[in-house]
Amino acid sequence: MTERKSTIALIQMRCGPEPEKNFTRATEFIREAAAQGAKIVCLPELFRSQYFCQAEDHKNFDLAEEVPGKSTAALGDVARKTGAVIIASVFEKRSAGVYHDSAAIIDADGGLLGKYRKMHVPDDPLYHEKFYFAPGDLGFQAWQTTHGKIGVCVCWDQWYPEAARLTALRGAEIIFYPTAIGWHPSEKKEFGLAQHSAWETIQRSHAIANGCYVAAANRVGHEAPAGGDGIEFWGQSFICGPDGKIIAKGSVDREEIVTADVEWDRVNEHRTHWPFLRDRRVDAYAGLEKRMID
Amino acid sequence: MTERKSTIALIQMRCGPEPEKNFTRATEFIREAAAQGAKIVCLPELFRSQYFCQAEDHKNFDLAEEVPGKSTAALGDVARKTGAVIIASVFEKRSAGVYHDSAAIIDADGGLLGKYRKMHVPDDPLYHEKFYFAPGDLGFQAWQTTHGKIGVCVCWDQWYPEAARLTALRGAEIIFYPTAIGWHPSEKKEFGLAQHSAWETIQRSHAIANGCYVAAANRVGHEAPAGGDGIEFWGQSFICGPDGKIIAKGSVDREEIVTADVEWDRVNEHRTHWPFLRDRRVDAYAGLEKRMID
Repeated sequence: MTERKSTIALIQMRCGPEPEKNFTRATEFIREAAAQGAKIVCLPELFRSQYFCQAEDHKNFDLAEEVPGKSTAALGDVARKTGAVIIASVFEKRSAGVYHDSAAIIDADGGLLGKYRKMHVPDDPLYHEKFYFAPGDLGFQAWQTTHGKIGVCVCWDQWYPEAARLTALRGAEIIFYPTAIGWHPSEKKEFGLAQHSAWETIQRSHAIANGCYVAAANRVGHEAPAGGDGIEFWGQSFICGPDGKIIAKGSVDREEIVTADVEWDRVNEHRTHWPFLRDRRVDAYAGLEKRMID
Repeated sequence: MTERKSTIALIQMRCGPEPEKNFTRATEFIREAAAQGAKIVCLPELFRSQYFCQAEDHKNFDLAEEVPGKSTAALGDVARKTGAVIIASVFEKRSAGVYHDSAAIIDADGGLLGKYRKMHVPDDPLYHEKFYFAPGDLGFQAWQTTHGKIGVCVCWDQWYPEAARLTALRGAEIIFYPTAIGWHPSEKKEFGLAQHSAWETIQRSHAIANGCYVAAANRVGHEAPAGGDGIEFWGQSFICGPDGKIIAKGSVDREEIVTADVEWDRVNEHRTHWPFLRDRRVDAYAGLEKRMID
């Protein structure tokens, strides 16, 4: 049904102040990736704009759009013409006053196969996402695309083993993470290395725990749309195998298409050698649904 | 109540064919660690014997003992005299035909504070643990010791984010992992690096996900008690901070006491800066109690 091997691609891109330019450039990157053989292409989180969550500004809600909507229709055309599955992060307007940080999963025929709404929403200095995004209510999912069964989580979700586990239990053999993460310039010297290492480590651990591929697409470049020091997005988009080993990785400061070949049979082979899913104590996980057990 | 800072120690030791000699050496290591200032000392998994699970042999059940029993009584004396909390892995005989891979938590006053029974039990070539050990039935716990609140899981548990999460949700600020893991000599060249990296990575990820310390005590040396190629235990016991950064690490082939200072306040400080526990979607984790969601 699916190929034995598929090239996947992460679009590591800069995002400027003009949404339509970002969108056009994203489609150009997708076409280029597809021309290189990519069958599944993932864009970074909220690629259509600069990372507006650095400030709480009601005007930014004007950036939102419906899903399905204008962006998914245009990307559907690109998918159909290139034959690539596209994972596109969209600032979704669901209704008046209800917005989500969503991802559209567009199949190779151009149809909207599914939608994920970011489940874990952060609120940190310069990452004021709880102001903009309601928590997702579609749960953790997996989709059978033309080229393989995949799951999608978004950015802050990557810190949560529960998100990766539930996505894998639904059958995802690759978990994609559209991401927008970087350094506060004032913190970078003291904490930058540990922050990036933790980010990479925990996503590699999701591959290990679940015996699947993990692919994280991050943006790159410095952005300060609200003034101040802004954020230096750390790039380093990567793809790792079911053993957690990184098989492709982008630079820290350049736009690029990060590609790797996914061998779908490796998920099954790997899980028979590292049989973690076999031994889960599904009878003993009560309490995971609590904030603390106190 | 607890100290602001405590030295903890992992005993990375070889285990020979004579249980009483191993036990005596373990107590010597604990005394030495305590003399160096260690307040919590963790022994490796099943340190009293060679790793007998390499073969299925009914005679090995004779190695088991009760908890509380002879070993915990003798270690209680060591704890009381040194003032150190001791985490001791014991092959527990619970009743005729019911055995566990357990860990005794002995407080600084010598009393048996608690018991953990390994929840996730593996069965792999040369790791025939399902033959020997019934799955644990005491769940994931944390204990307030004289020197701080800790949790204990055992070896194969380390591959399960659920185990670390539940232990942390119960308040553990350090999760200890008595461990016996190594390479099949015939696989080491091809897979050894990835296997060790995955083991270290996933435990670091538990520290990151939960904002706590993680400390894994592994044995070292080559053992082939059942003949054949045996297992080369890979040592490299380590302690990492709440950001996942390794702060102490043992060698791959030598006995040693691996120590680090734990700053208890750092758990709280770290979790306010990396507020992952705040944002868990406790309303949306249904399915974690299933083997697969299919």
